Amino acid sequence: MNKQHLNIGLFGFGNVGRGLYELLQNVPEANADIVRVCVRNVARHSAATPALNFTSSMEEVLDDPAVNIVVELIDDAEAAYRIVTGALRRRLPVVTGNKKMLARHLPELIHIQKETGTALLYDASACGSIPVIRNLEEYYDNDLQISVKGILNGSSNFILSKIFNDGMPHAEALRLARELGFLESDPTLDLDGWDSLYKLVILTLHAFGVYVDPEKIFTYGITHMTDADILFAREKGRRFKLIGHAEKTPDGRLILAVMPQLISKNKFIYSCEDEFNGVVIKGLFYGKQFLVGRGAGGHPTSSAVLSDISSIRYNYFYRYKRMQSGELPRFTNDISFRVYVRYNTDEDLDLLQFEEISERYYSEDTRYVIGRVNLRRLHAIRHLLSERKIFIAAYPND
Amino acid sequence: MNKQHLNIGLFGFGNVGRGLYELLQNVPEANADIVRVCVRNVARHSAATPALNFTSSMEEVLDDPAVNIVVELIDDAEAAYRIVTGALRRRLPVVTGNKKMLARHLPELIHIQKETGTALLYDASACGSIPVIRNLEEYYDNDLQISVKGILNGSSNFILSKIFNDGMPHAEALRLARELGFLESDPTLDLDGWDSLYKLVILTLHAFGVYVDPEKIFTYGITHMTDADILFAREKGRRFKLIGHAEKTPDGRLILAVMPQLISKNKFIYSCEDEFNGVVIKGLFYGKQFLVGRGAGGHPTSSAVLSDISSIRYNYFYRYKRMQSGELPRFTNDISFRVYVRYNTDEDLDLLQFEEISERYYSEDTRYVIGRVNLRRLHAIRHLLSERKIFIAAYPND
Repeated sequence: MNKQHLNIGLFGFGNVGRGLYELLQNVPEANADIVRVCVRNVARHSAATPALNFTSSMEEVLDDPAVNIVVELIDDAEAAYRIVTGALRRRLPVVTGNKKMLARHLPELIHIQKETGTALLYDASACGSIPVIRNLEEYYDNDLQISVKGILNGSSNFILSKIFNDGMPHAEALRLARELGFLESDPTLDLDGWDSLYKLVILTLHAFGVYVDPEKIFTYGITHMTDADILFAREKGRRFKLIGHAEKTPDGRLILAVMPQLISKNKFIYSCEDEFNGVVIKGLFYGKQFLVGRGAGGHPTSSAVLSDISSIRYNYFYRYKRMQSGELPRFTNDISFRVYVRYNTDEDLDLLQFEEISERYYSEDTRYVIGRVNLRRLHAIRHLLSERKIFIAAYPND
Repeated sequence: MNKQHLNIGLFGFGNVGRGLYELLQNVPEANADIVRVCVRNVARHSAATPALNFTSSMEEVLDDPAVNIVVELIDDAEAAYRIVTGALRRRLPVVTGNKKMLARHLPELIHIQKETGTALLYDASACGSIPVIRNLEEYYDNDLQISVKGILNGSSNFILSKIFNDGMPHAEALRLARELGFLESDPTLDLDGWDSLYKLVILTLHAFGVYVDPEKIFTYGITHMTDADILFAREKGRRFKLIGHAEKTPDGRLILAVMPQLISKNKFIYSCEDEFNGVVIKGLFYGKQFLVGRGAGGHPTSSAVLSDISSIRYNYFYRYKRMQSGELPRFTNDISFRVYVRYNTDEDLDLLQFEEISERYYSEDTRYVIGRVNLRRLHAIRHLLSERKIFIAAYPND
């Protein structure tokens, strides 16, 4: 469809949808228009943006003969799944930003793409404006991939930055993030690591060719972080960052986790602040690459969406090359690593089944240990950790 | 040539060429072999690497019917130009890392690509392992580009890092960089900014669609930096970085320069150390993007070369889309900006024709001023600045 005008059927008109509309008005070279928009509240949107043609019917958009590309930017993952599969089955290429839907349905969506010969692009789904997926697909695909890790959620990073740099109390940082529109409608998605988890699943598929069910990955956020934890990090000259981590071990196992990590000053990620996302990609030959960009906000994400829209014009599609390579790494949670754990009762400590404890501190106010635990154990007791308000963070030696 | 086996005709077998050879042995999925290598000293290379087929004749490689892709990795820009144009005219796609050759001949090379319908890829030419060109072409191409700037030379950055972080004397840092193989055979290429200049010309073409003759761009390096300058930077809490800078002004002018800059702690580039390159790309909608990766060394660069080789298989070619966009920014040196200048005599100062001086310091040992100068003036007196061993750095307010 090289020279063809793109007629977008858009789903959702929130921050990113509106950002896309504004961006298209600024970039006539994009040669694309929004011809139909599906939203829940037609009356409200029609009043606010009379230039656009709103409807509440999914079919009206998908069956509109004028529409030749679908852009899906809604919150609801299951509705998004119906939209995306409905469009692909009609052989309409799709651009989506719905990480939860992708993380759950990627294997099937890859299958439908092949079956229908229709492209699904979703670079906006992981790390907002940073072209991570594209680069993993097109640029880092010839090297021996070692790891992909980073700050995948802008909202929680914004909160951590405010706490560590401005000494803002936890609650106030949360309030400010909400005010700036950085938090999802359900803030636990950001703060408990679920948003990072979905992105990690997507990145892992493109980096290592392996799809891992999100339910199998240990995921723990910053909700239970307290002033005592912040003090500990400061004393060690480190900062807590919420990190999504995928790493291939030398013996071909694939380790995944989303959890806070104590990051030292000499790491790129230490200085990745505010609503920025930062991803470190490591390969045997190219070494370390670090990519940083805004991970929250309507405009940066809509810019990523437009890049995908534009690539549809050039018949670009993900090739998922890594999935076809000979020996894929085996996903496992069976690995032990050093952690910092702030706990409340001795029972909490038993729960974790430490393999080794190297430091132990308790005072009237706070108790913590540093030691080695098994990731499989953490995954098994995730709910209990949260119920007991235990805070846990990976604590690498360097 | 999707499934076709790639038979590489290679020119040059230095760090990067050897790195490519090793990488290909590690990645059989690349489905590419080096079938012929053109070097100056055939006997030496044949003895060291008997598995490869060496020759000293350019024609023997280009006319070898087995060769279906040419990879050019030699130092000499004029010989590289003959190789690249010779290959393209024979309709052999080319991957090159020769920034000097590209910076001088890009308009003609773009023309030959169109004429012959044959691709020339060169992501390895700018910032080693960082896919800057690819991302400018494919990902940031739909936004309104504001600026591209950064550390484009790994060797000089390595030296600056050693001086600022380890307090190493200038001369010793230089020696260490040479020992580690980070310096070009002619170190002034790195230290006086010429290497950064060539990369800046290439990046500017892809970011703004404008080709600027390297001779028109003010280029000044770190050769004349002394301990007094380092002390000044430290006192201000800043670091000198050698920055290539391209920026579009709101009124549509394009400003280019390569020179040291006093970088404050809150900038991404401040923490980009050692042989790493770091580029900040700014667009109206996506905001700031920061890309970091190794900018010196054989393996990282050969990894970038292999990415390009692999893209040839998928018929990828640069579209130079920005060149076709409606209104291109006009290159000019007519802009004034704040600088720090350490000088020796009053005559030095007159030479610079300051528009305004805001600070002035002199002691028995050192003299400096802070003030505003015009870039056109700096460009005109570049040789005199160097002859008089004047050190000059941009000194932005933030």
